[in-house]
Amino acid sequence: MSGTALRADAARNRRLIVDAAREVFGERGLDAPLDEIARRAGVGNATLYRRFPTRRELVTAVFADTLAEVVQAADRALAAADPWLAFAGHIGFLCELQAGSRALADLLTARIEPAPELEDLRTRAYDGLDRIIGRAQQAGVLREDFRPGDVVLILMANAGLLARTEPTVPGAWRRQLSFVVDGLRAPAATPAPPAPSREAVLGAMTTLAERLGCG
Amino acid sequence: MSGTALRADAARNRRLIVDAAREVFGERGLDAPLDEIARRAGVGNATLYRRFPTRRELVTAVFADTLAEVVQAADRALAAADPWLAFAGHIGFLCELQAGSRALADLLTARIEPAPELEDLRTRAYDGLDRIIGRAQQAGVLREDFRPGDVVLILMANAGLLARTEPTVPGAWRRQLSFVVDGLRAPAATPAPPAPSREAVLGAMTTLAERLGCG
Repeated sequence: MSGTALRADAARNRRLIVDAAREVFGERGLDAPLDEIARRAGVGNATLYRRFPTRRELVTAVFADTLAEVVQAADRALAAADPWLAFAGHIGFLCELQAGSRALADLLTARIEPAPELEDLRTRAYDGLDRIIGRAQQAGVLREDFRPGDVVLILMANAGLLARTEPTVPGAWRRQLSFVVDGLRAPAATPAPPAPSREAVLGAMTTLAERLGCG
Repeated sequence: MSGTALRADAARNRRLIVDAAREVFGERGLDAPLDEIARRAGVGNATLYRRFPTRRELVTAVFADTLAEVVQAADRALAAADPWLAFAGHIGFLCELQAGSRALADLLTARIEPAPELEDLRTRAYDGLDRIIGRAQQAGVLREDFRPGDVVLILMANAGLLARTEPTVPGAWRRQLSFVVDGLRAPAATPAPPAPSREAVLGAMTTLAERLGCG
């Protein structure tokens, strides 16, 4: 093969592996067997290990893939006409990502150790969220005391609910989320207790290493 | 000692053990060492094992103790003048019980295998909740589509949030709960997705045996 064909082949394999990993991690958690991922991707184990020498690199690639989707969703929300539906829809999108994947449920609220390929995506995902929240508050439809860190708390509560109700009560999270979201509309019925600091919220976010440690 | 004195002594020891167990389970989970409970209660291991031959019997006694408190709280809520504050206060009481005890966080939403000493308390706790909800809905202050089973979902989400934020962000649950509770006020801003059936909610509740199995 020519160099170009080799590169195209490598990119194709990488894509197959990341897609398969996302599925398998979603079904079985971040400690799923790598063999199963190679099998699902239709590549040999050697190819998988050459592309992703450690589980962590593979998890990072899957997470980058998800973050790219989150960024796209934020862009769509910011282009939508209704600031409230944009906000509520984006929160719903994040919770649905969690519902669709056992691995993502907690990964979405994990701190990722420095990983250059994630930094830009991560910044764009957070910026998008800030702008969705700011726009809804400026339009007077989202309660003023809501903070971006509250999204982390919502996702952590959703992850806990998912762990306890899926698959026995599929969709229970949608009902609970509808109550939460209704409670976020302006004007707030009651002032919320003070928001935790950004540092405190970051402190509650487990690291990817901890996640991998506990499977 | 006379028979009466013996019985008084036994009752006193039982009380000391249950109080200590509640503390220790709360701090260390339901798989906490029984030796530590005996030590904290100031009784010998033999006394503890005589009163509670299995861990399950001790957990059941601790849970009965908690359920009795829940029943008392429900009675207080039903005696309160304001149906909304009574409802919101009772939900807050349940979430605070969870926050105060690692063991209770999930035990409150566990199905308990038939245990005669729990049946009556359990029925009274559920009846109290039904009446608190019914009263608030009749007064037009609680959204009409709220169901008693939704309290189970709220407590499961709260348990998940507590597991992820305590002790790094103590009290984060209060903020999240304030959003949820604001979303429960009548009139509902948006109709919630259909409530899961009572059977489905029961199916999501782990059994005490499962809880003990996974520590």
